[in-house]
Amino acid sequence: MTLALAIDLGGTKIEGALVDADGAIIEGSRHRTPTGAGAATDLTVLERGLTEVIDGCRAHPRWNEVVAAGIGAAGPIDITAGTIAPINLPAAHGFAIVAAVRTASGLDAVTLRLDGTCIALAEAWRGAARGVRNAIVFVVSTGVGGGIVSDGRLVAGGSGNAGHLGQILVADVDGEPAASTLEQRASGPHTVAWARAQGWAGTTGEELAVSYRAGEDVAVAAVARSAHAVGVGLTSAATLLDLELAVVGGGFSFVADDYPDRIERVVRDSAVNAYAGRLKVVRAGLGGDAPLIGAGALVHRADLL
Amino acid sequence: MTLALAIDLGGTKIEGALVDADGAIIEGSRHRTPTGAGAATDLTVLERGLTEVIDGCRAHPRWNEVVAAGIGAAGPIDITAGTIAPINLPAAHGFAIVAAVRTASGLDAVTLRLDGTCIALAEAWRGAARGVRNAIVFVVSTGVGGGIVSDGRLVAGGSGNAGHLGQILVADVDGEPAASTLEQRASGPHTVAWARAQGWAGTTGEELAVSYRAGEDVAVAAVARSAHAVGVGLTSAATLLDLELAVVGGGFSFVADDYPDRIERVVRDSAVNAYAGRLKVVRAGLGGDAPLIGAGALVHRADLL
Repeated sequence: MTLALAIDLGGTKIEGALVDADGAIIEGSRHRTPTGAGAATDLTVLERGLTEVIDGCRAHPRWNEVVAAGIGAAGPIDITAGTIAPINLPAAHGFAIVAAVRTASGLDAVTLRLDGTCIALAEAWRGAARGVRNAIVFVVSTGVGGGIVSDGRLVAGGSGNAGHLGQILVADVDGEPAASTLEQRASGPHTVAWARAQGWAGTTGEELAVSYRAGEDVAVAAVARSAHAVGVGLTSAATLLDLELAVVGGGFSFVADDYPDRIERVVRDSAVNAYAGRLKVVRAGLGGDAPLIGAGALVHRADLL
Repeated sequence: MTLALAIDLGGTKIEGALVDADGAIIEGSRHRTPTGAGAATDLTVLERGLTEVIDGCRAHPRWNEVVAAGIGAAGPIDITAGTIAPINLPAAHGFAIVAAVRTASGLDAVTLRLDGTCIALAEAWRGAARGVRNAIVFVVSTGVGGGIVSDGRLVAGGSGNAGHLGQILVADVDGEPAASTLEQRASGPHTVAWARAQGWAGTTGEELAVSYRAGEDVAVAAVARSAHAVGVGLTSAATLLDLELAVVGGGFSFVADDYPDRIERVVRDSAVNAYAGRLKVVRAGLGGDAPLIGAGALVHRADLL
């Protein structure tokens, strides 16, 4: 069986593993190194971490079965140039990650995509979007981002950045655009901050989940506010792309058991066109392994790209 | 040379023509019949009009070269069922247009797409979006709508309705969603109505263009308001899909010579992500023939679907 070298480069860690053609992560092949504050200011920290992770993968007894590599990276990225410019890692702006993975792995075939694209690909392959030809898959966490399946294929876009759901506008822009983005209205930290500004005493998303379950007014309003922003953004996405399904994951999506239902209701109430209002919103089928499985799918499911 | 039977079904007319493999409309092959008020309430008016148009095309001496038909229709549509449900023609809701065109033409191969998809396909084939792999093409007129080219292909979406740019939300939804749509903020009639509410004395988009050219304050503000709504919507579209180009056509887009430039500036100022802010906005390369050329492209450029 051919294997993929799967790499996930996020704002806080680099992870690598071997992924088989069924989407399984090969036991004992998983390696991880934090990027952390060092990598944000010093590119050599990131380069060293990447090499360590790949060296770890190369030491696996089944390395000889690896035929190609897939990389999911925090955005923005440039898939034409093979470079990344992650917001949280300023020192890595312009880093030629494709060339670096080629050198460190000895593999010629290296495919780079946005981390959100990889998560969507994983859900389309082995998760909640399996068999769905038009879907958006996204996480609500510290940030909000995802990937799009359109007419049965993952959308890359001009430079590979399609799927940045968090930066679409859900309110009129007047002055500072960032204040009108979906992410600023819906992310975990922003929602917690909003609740605190309304007098709620907690500090984390987990505490907000407890308060929500207890029916505390501010917590309920905060969750509703987050779901509203996501729903309004999804309404635009579903209208523009005629989507059938939205798949939501990410830590903050667990703030409420009915978080997906709340989003679905907002879409139903906000959509002018009936086809858009029928969007189903469900939870992700895969957990924290989705980024690696999706990076592996860049090799195994090139038919979806 | 093989020819396509191209059909364009809009809210006010049905048009048909033979289109060759270069995108040219064959001389003397063009037939048109108004749908008008009758078709809105009586399906037989529409069916008769469609048959008349196709009979006209069949009478052309080169009919024997026609291999297949393409239909562009006002939305919403259902490409799986082969039916249409145009907003302006209530009697035609559920009309099986694909079957009707098969019967009237004797052609087996009949492809249905949204009129906006056809316009985008035409611009991608022979117009301003030629060779561009990620673009949105749209008209600003009585309504606002268009089609999307993503990774080199026209997006259909679940039922064929991708491209409804006019119904995406450009302001926070509170109560009545329609009031927050791009179309309600940017279309010709809505912009004229807004200008009149500010005290402007004219009644048409053409008059608004004259007032704009004369530098009248309200006219300038009205045009800016329309361009702002379009720009905010395009910012979301470009962010979500990583688009390179937006192509604007439609009668109201001529309200100001700098209408595309105004939109482009709004996108640049509204985009949080640099890749989205780089969206170019240009005028359409084709005029009123775009819907028919695009319907013909459904046959000749199936590689773009």
